[in-house]
Amino acid sequence: MLNTEYKNSSLKIFSLEGNQPLAQEVANLVGIPLGKSTVKRFADGEVQINIEESIRGCDVFIIQPTSNPVNEHLMELLIMIDACKRASAANINIVMPYYGYARQDRKARSREPITAKLVANIIEKAGASRMIALDLHAPQIQGFFDIPIDHLMGVPILSNYFFEKGLDPETTVVVSPDHGGVTRARKMADRLKTPIAIIDKRRPKPNVAEVMNIVGDIDGKTAIIIDDIIDTAGTITLAADALIKKGAKEVYACCTHPVLSGPAKERIENSQIKELVVTNSIQLPEDRKPSNVKELSVAELLAQAIVRVYEQESVSVLFD
Amino acid sequence: MLNTEYKNSSLKIFSLEGNQPLAQEVANLVGIPLGKSTVKRFADGEVQINIEESIRGCDVFIIQPTSNPVNEHLMELLIMIDACKRASAANINIVMPYYGYARQDRKARSREPITAKLVANIIEKAGASRMIALDLHAPQIQGFFDIPIDHLMGVPILSNYFFEKGLDPETTVVVSPDHGGVTRARKMADRLKTPIAIIDKRRPKPNVAEVMNIVGDIDGKTAIIIDDIIDTAGTITLAADALIKKGAKEVYACCTHPVLSGPAKERIENSQIKELVVTNSIQLPEDRKPSNVKELSVAELLAQAIVRVYEQESVSVLFD
Amino acid sequence: MLNTEYKNSSLKIFSLEGNQPLAQEVANLVGIPLGKSTVKRFADGEVQINIEESIRGCDVFIIQPTSNPVNEHLMELLIMIDACKRASAANINIVMPYYGYARQDRKARSREPITAKLVANIIEKAGASRMIALDLHAPQIQGFFDIPIDHLMGVPILSNYFFEKGLDPETTVVVSPDHGGVTRARKMADRLKTPIAIIDKRRPKPNVAEVMNIVGDIDGKTAIIIDDIIDTAGTITLAADALIKKGAKEVYACCTHPVLSGPAKERIENSQIKELVVTNSIQLPEDRKPSNVKELSVAELLAQAIVRVYEQESVSVLFD
Amino acid sequence: MLNTEYKNSSLKIFSLEGNQPLAQEVANLVGIPLGKSTVKRFADGEVQINIEESIRGCDVFIIQPTSNPVNEHLMELLIMIDACKRASAANINIVMPYYGYARQDRKARSREPITAKLVANIIEKAGASRMIALDLHAPQIQGFFDIPIDHLMGVPILSNYFFEKGLDPETTVVVSPDHGGVTRARKMADRLKTPIAIIDKRRPKPNVAEVMNIVGDIDGKTAIIIDDIIDTAGTITLAADALIKKGAKEVYACCTHPVLSGPAKERIENSQIKELVVTNSIQLPEDRKPSNVKELSVAELLAQAIVRVYEQESVSVLFD
Amino acid sequence: MLNTEYKNSSLKIFSLEGNQPLAQEVANLVGIPLGKSTVKRFADGEVQINIEESIRGCDVFIIQPTSNPVNEHLMELLIMIDACKRASAANINIVMPYYGYARQDRKARSREPITAKLVANIIEKAGASRMIALDLHAPQIQGFFDIPIDHLMGVPILSNYFFEKGLDPETTVVVSPDHGGVTRARKMADRLKTPIAIIDKRRPKPNVAEVMNIVGDIDGKTAIIIDDIIDTAGTITLAADALIKKGAKEVYACCTHPVLSGPAKERIENSQIKELVVTNSIQLPEDRKPSNVKELSVAELLAQAIVRVYEQESVSVLFD
Amino acid sequence: MLNTEYKNSSLKIFSLEGNQPLAQEVANLVGIPLGKSTVKRFADGEVQINIEESIRGCDVFIIQPTSNPVNEHLMELLIMIDACKRASAANINIVMPYYGYARQDRKARSREPITAKLVANIIEKAGASRMIALDLHAPQIQGFFDIPIDHLMGVPILSNYFFEKGLDPETTVVVSPDHGGVTRARKMADRLKTPIAIIDKRRPKPNVAEVMNIVGDIDGKTAIIIDDIIDTAGTITLAADALIKKGAKEVYACCTHPVLSGPAKERIENSQIKELVVTNSIQLPEDRKPSNVKELSVAELLAQAIVRVYEQESVSVLFD
Repeated sequence: MLNTEYKNSSLKIFSLEGNQPLAQEVANLVGIPLGKSTVKRFADGEVQINIEESIRGCDVFIIQPTSNPVNEHLMELLIMIDACKRASAANINIVMPYYGYARQDRKARSREPITAKLVANIIEKAGASRMIALDLHAPQIQGFFDIPIDHLMGVPILSNYFFEKGLDPETTVVVSPDHGGVTRARKMADRLKTPIAIIDKRRPKPNVAEVMNIVGDIDGKTAIIIDDIIDTAGTITLAADALIKKGAKEVYACCTHPVLSGPAKERIENSQIKELVVTNSIQLPEDRKPSNVKELSVAELLAQAIVRVYEQESVSVLFD
Repeated sequence: MLNTEYKNSSLKIFSLEGNQPLAQEVANLVGIPLGKSTVKRFADGEVQINIEESIRGCDVFIIQPTSNPVNEHLMELLIMIDACKRASAANINIVMPYYGYARQDRKARSREPITAKLVANIIEKAGASRMIALDLHAPQIQGFFDIPIDHLMGVPILSNYFFEKGLDPETTVVVSPDHGGVTRARKMADRLKTPIAIIDKRRPKPNVAEVMNIVGDIDGKTAIIIDDIIDTAGTITLAADALIKKGAKEVYACCTHPVLSGPAKERIENSQIKELVVTNSIQLPEDRKPSNVKELSVAELLAQAIVRVYEQESVSVLFD
Repeated sequence: MLNTEYKNSSLKIFSLEGNQPLAQEVANLVGIPLGKSTVKRFADGEVQINIEESIRGCDVFIIQPTSNPVNEHLMELLIMIDACKRASAANINIVMPYYGYARQDRKARSREPITAKLVANIIEKAGASRMIALDLHAPQIQGFFDIPIDHLMGVPILSNYFFEKGLDPETTVVVSPDHGGVTRARKMADRLKTPIAIIDKRRPKPNVAEVMNIVGDIDGKTAIIIDDIIDTAGTITLAADALIKKGAKEVYACCTHPVLSGPAKERIENSQIKELVVTNSIQLPEDRKPSNVKELSVAELLAQAIVRVYEQESVSVLFD
Repeated sequence: MLNTEYKNSSLKIFSLEGNQPLAQEVANLVGIPLGKSTVKRFADGEVQINIEESIRGCDVFIIQPTSNPVNEHLMELLIMIDACKRASAANINIVMPYYGYARQDRKARSREPITAKLVANIIEKAGASRMIALDLHAPQIQGFFDIPIDHLMGVPILSNYFFEKGLDPETTVVVSPDHGGVTRARKMADRLKTPIAIIDKRRPKPNVAEVMNIVGDIDGKTAIIIDDIIDTAGTITLAADALIKKGAKEVYACCTHPVLSGPAKERIENSQIKELVVTNSIQLPEDRKPSNVKELSVAELLAQAIVRVYEQESVSVLFD
Repeated sequence: MLNTEYKNSSLKIFSLEGNQPLAQEVANLVGIPLGKSTVKRFADGEVQINIEESIRGCDVFIIQPTSNPVNEHLMELLIMIDACKRASAANINIVMPYYGYARQDRKARSREPITAKLVANIIEKAGASRMIALDLHAPQIQGFFDIPIDHLMGVPILSNYFFEKGLDPETTVVVSPDHGGVTRARKMADRLKTPIAIIDKRRPKPNVAEVMNIVGDIDGKTAIIIDDIIDTAGTITLAADALIKKGAKEVYACCTHPVLSGPAKERIENSQIKELVVTNSIQLPEDRKPSNVKELSVAELLAQAIVRVYEQESVSVLFD
Repeated sequence: MLNTEYKNSSLKIFSLEGNQPLAQEVANLVGIPLGKSTVKRFADGEVQINIEESIRGCDVFIIQPTSNPVNEHLMELLIMIDACKRASAANINIVMPYYGYARQDRKARSREPITAKLVANIIEKAGASRMIALDLHAPQIQGFFDIPIDHLMGVPILSNYFFEKGLDPETTVVVSPDHGGVTRARKMADRLKTPIAIIDKRRPKPNVAEVMNIVGDIDGKTAIIIDDIIDTAGTITLAADALIKKGAKEVYACCTHPVLSGPAKERIENSQIKELVVTNSIQLPEDRKPSNVKELSVAELLAQAIVRVYEQESVSVLFD
């Protein structure tokens, strides 16, 4: 894919345990082997990291989504950064396709932590030089850092998939599953040239069941629900139910980050969702992968970003 | 209002030039005179600040919205913090009813600054100990700081005003003027027990005029458009037009922060907006104040917060 | 135990999930209930912490050994510190009876991290004000911090236990299980007025089995092996074997921190060790507790330290 | 002027709004176009900066005197630094021909800020790598920074101008307009081989008019008053009056930084000053430019400094 | 002198080796014994400091001028600060009557350090909370710190001494020994209501002897030369010679900081200086004390400042 | 020795006053002259450093052991770092063959400083980029820094010397002079394939003389005592006495760092030590050099490390 030769260059790509298949795919696209390192755990659970080749003066890229188990993956990352710093790496670039704790990005109630900022602080303190991120839960998380961040987007990849399905814009609608995701839905709708709708979940009175209202016209249409993260899949499967009940013809769902924890697999397989489209930002083990999931790869996007950062070329061409 | 006597205490409230009437109102409620200080400008525009009473060991509260002229107000604030720090204040609390540059809270395009984070960084660097803020444009801005922030809300004050008008929930709808504001609209709608609608502005094709679509039912209803900031009032007055055109009975608009710059006054007065409801977080000079504006005071909210911070009591009771 | 009343004071003690029984015991000794807080995990493994009472202006003490699962316990601690900082606690004191990752305290090989320093850096960055620690693996770890540390010792508690057994100094020997622990063995030997011996494990030639040499006289004696941490118990059980084989009458073992991971329980129960004496710095679940273990409590030591720090009295009286 | 070709190099020069003609002159001398960027203001006064070409990995030089309006120019600079940092510039060099707030460089009275240090702190915090400055009001301001500063001097340029006039050293005297500027006057006098005199302004008794005493011999001589900054021109025009009154034949005045605010133009034109010699460190709009002003360019000095910094050659040859 | 009782308070005053007589005098005035601590040196020259009483939660004041041997005194100070920080002192106030390295306050030549800033940086880094300084060589050194500084002045003490001599203002002149000290001379002259003169040392041509010119009228007058620091006394004794030679009736000299190193004692005793007036900011050993020296004490000034800082009262009354 | 030419490269080696012969030897091996700089002292003891060649953009290596007089050498180092930083050096590498204050690496008693950490903090604060160290007293001192450290070892050099003597492993024993040095003794013993012994100094009862017990078999053997630092030589000479008394045939002693202060020379010459083997990490003046000392050079080890760091090659090959 890439027309330069990086084999004996100062470009090094390392993978921790977050998503080794994705890291391998990226390294293959860049055309270099993954850097030699091992991540072990002592019997008491402490992480031990060994970097098994010299990285002095190198531009190191560490690929690590901080997905479940988030605390393990985060500590691996911090320890690897510390090791790289003390081993005199020239630059320590973090490639984080999924940013764990991103949803704890503000104090919603008294005495809450802002864990997403804590994570940013400790990554910077450990010694990271730069970050490549993908679809941060809130774009403001970029500002949690003082190091440069290249923020890549998943919407184009997801939109493109549906675009290639050849859906008729007249009978398609992009749906935000909650009040906070309307901007994202509008971005996908613009690419597919469709209108939008919003699931307006609310509780009419105290002690009365929550109502799944729908704001916008979905009658007889193909609905595509889009979210950035699907976790336990409660919201999205209830949304799909409501859409079908209120007259939608069929329902697709998509997201960049398939956390899919707990009952997610079962809920999705048993839901009205025809197909769930996700990226491989998070490595989905087979036993958490719903049968109706479609996985799109972000490896080329990340590989392009890594090479452009290394070559000091503009990354902005990758933002569309 | 407050049953304690702070006259000879270590509690000091200072106002800079951002909003002296509000600061005076707050000080009156707390029951102490504003701290003695002067803000002058030299002939060449440099700010000169003199603190004219000892603040050694005091808990200083500086009331300063960084409203237009934002750079002047921000530099006043930074210089005042520096002066307080060097004068051995025990704590330097910033009371910032309006946070200028809050909308520059992320890199939306390549090579953009994140000025809202820069502002946080330089306020912290100058030496601030703590902040009291009101309706930050994005709640994530709390995470731009590592000092504690008490984040007060304008929605309850605004909602209460409409609640007291006695509008019928059946024939009222709260409207978000854009895709990003739906959560805020839902919060007000919950308080008024009404449904919501969204202005879904989009451009169907390149080189075709933008369309003001409305998602949700507004037919024959009283619409209340809510935003956090109204600046040039273009969006909100077009939204009002669209609402009336699509069948709304009447349109109110409200926001916490009435920036109202440039053509705002004229646009609002000439618009379909029956009444614009705002708070005094920003001091509106008479010549920028629309004739149909209603101003609600946040002074009591701020006074309560200041006293609670000083007394080390929980501020969370003020969040509802 | 303590003659002051702290119930309505600004002294707050919180426990995370590291060692709740110890924390409860400490709180009982201080005479106040544990602070109200909850530590939950979302379905995807993210930690959620809620502090359910106001701590504004309080001296907070967080009791949390970062024992196995170390990364979970460490992230809990960091998140709790962040929450306390943003909730305007006056001081955030970390009470860490066991310091996970303490053994990764230097670069022993090329490109190793110094994880014990990383941990110190991120605890400080999160916002800790002060630490109370117990028997750090290397005393130099105190210097990894720039905040004040009160470093309590386990040797007096362990020594006292053996002293009360009434062992004859003439026929007792304290044994260091490796070359690095001789100073600790000498400290206990001074308290028991006995000589010392050292297990001098070495490999005579490459590809030849390691030899468990003993330096010092142990013939016919009661040997007490002392270490700071017993993890998989390999070293210590081999040492006990060697001691018996070389003529020791009986072997006790003791340590401050019973990590006891993996095969430890089985090894100890099947070893020549008559009794293993440990403290409750780490909470030992029943299924990892050897049948021949004796657990001594550090709760009173910690409670005394907490009250002295709170009262701003010297802690040094606790060091002997 | 420069014998190297920088057109496709990683050397980028940007101008903000402080002094675009000077920046253009510098860029012409270096032989590259100014970097593409725009500085706009929103209707509410917030600064918006767009960098319109990739600067990833580049050595960026930002030319910006923080002259009147100082707070606007300073915020432009900080925002530009933030943008460059987040856009992965390799080095962010600030070229600040005039340092606003330099006169607030110490606490002269109780509870004063030290705004010149505040400015240094926030420039460093924003992310500047290095600074090129010209005639700082106090040379100690270099020490307000921890980043390297190359401190260029205006005295040689000003002295050279008078030297070329061919004034007779015997009948010329360099005059310091106040007690703090004698060292500067002596430096110019050394270059022109003349003696010095000092204006010794003092108030003999309270409630008695200030006296413009002159210490040193000026009788029948051509006097050259030198200062670093001329602001409202009160001091310097009164000094010129006093010199003529006490017998000077004619009076020139010169300074590096022509702030010339408020009544300066009128005062100078109506004064005894035959010619006012200044540099273009500050851009003088036509309506603030006295008719008898002579402007000398510092563009070549700055261009040389920029190229030497970029080429990592010694800058010290420019200090004489 | 002081009407409060500090014996059992949290106010602690410690002295290192810089100036124990002054520290003892200050402690006596405050009415408390000096804190118990020892400063020893190991055989290899390393400093060992022991604090022999609890300072947990105390407001510690460390009296230490960093006079000759400056590096020893500075390291003592840094080590003491580190010890106080780790011993949980509430505030660490540095009382530094003389600031060593103050004259290295700017880069006068290429590749020079700014050691006075380095000193400020390392004192802050070590953990100092606040400083009380006396007559800093340049007032801008206050800005080298971000902690608060109370900057006391020696000129009033020195002026008062001469005022009490009853010198006639008509026949007295205050003389600055160089170009940089004219402002200081003017301040003393204002207090004594006399005119000023300046020693204008310069070299007419290369390879020609330096000329001690005098600018201002000194004929038949009593001249008082004032400087902040007198080090080797070369400048000041040559100045005295020149003054007598050019017609002065008699010459006094004074300074705040009598460094008096190398040949100073001999030069002063053999000079035209009738009396040298100094303060005890630096401890003068008998063998470096000129016979014609008069030492004034700053102890009361420092004691007042310490008590006011401790009591959180304004220190500004001490500035006149 | 080195096959590359560094004469006109950006590699610069400077020596301060700590150990100029060693620095010269290193520079000779690298094949470049030492950088031109001067270290002077003013009459009052202040250090003045001038760097007399441009270092802009260079990789500077500063060779400076902080040996006696430690405070002078440390301040020289800090001032040199400050000068290099302000002169725009690209990297400031500290080559510190001996780390003064390394033994103050923990709080052994209440209210002690941790001076070794203070030293690390101020070196980092001054602006050092990286360090090359030799045999740090505790390897944990690496963790006192957040900059990369390459930690070289003296044991191989010392061991090699004894290996070449051809001592019979059967009749040789390596002895640790105290409890803390057993690991070091074991490392040398492994290289010489000998057993170890320990001097177990202890006081049987209070007010009874200390006993020099020996743990391990030394009878009839050649004993080699190894330590990292020999300071006043009390411990080591008493150890030698005890070894001979308890039956050792002969005693050698060795260490990396010959501090040899106070009575060391006399003690060693009068002791049972046949030969004292040391490195030149510290420059031993002739009058402190015992007659029976053998000095081994670390110059080649340092030169190799410098070149490898400069060339960004792995340094780990030097660790064996």
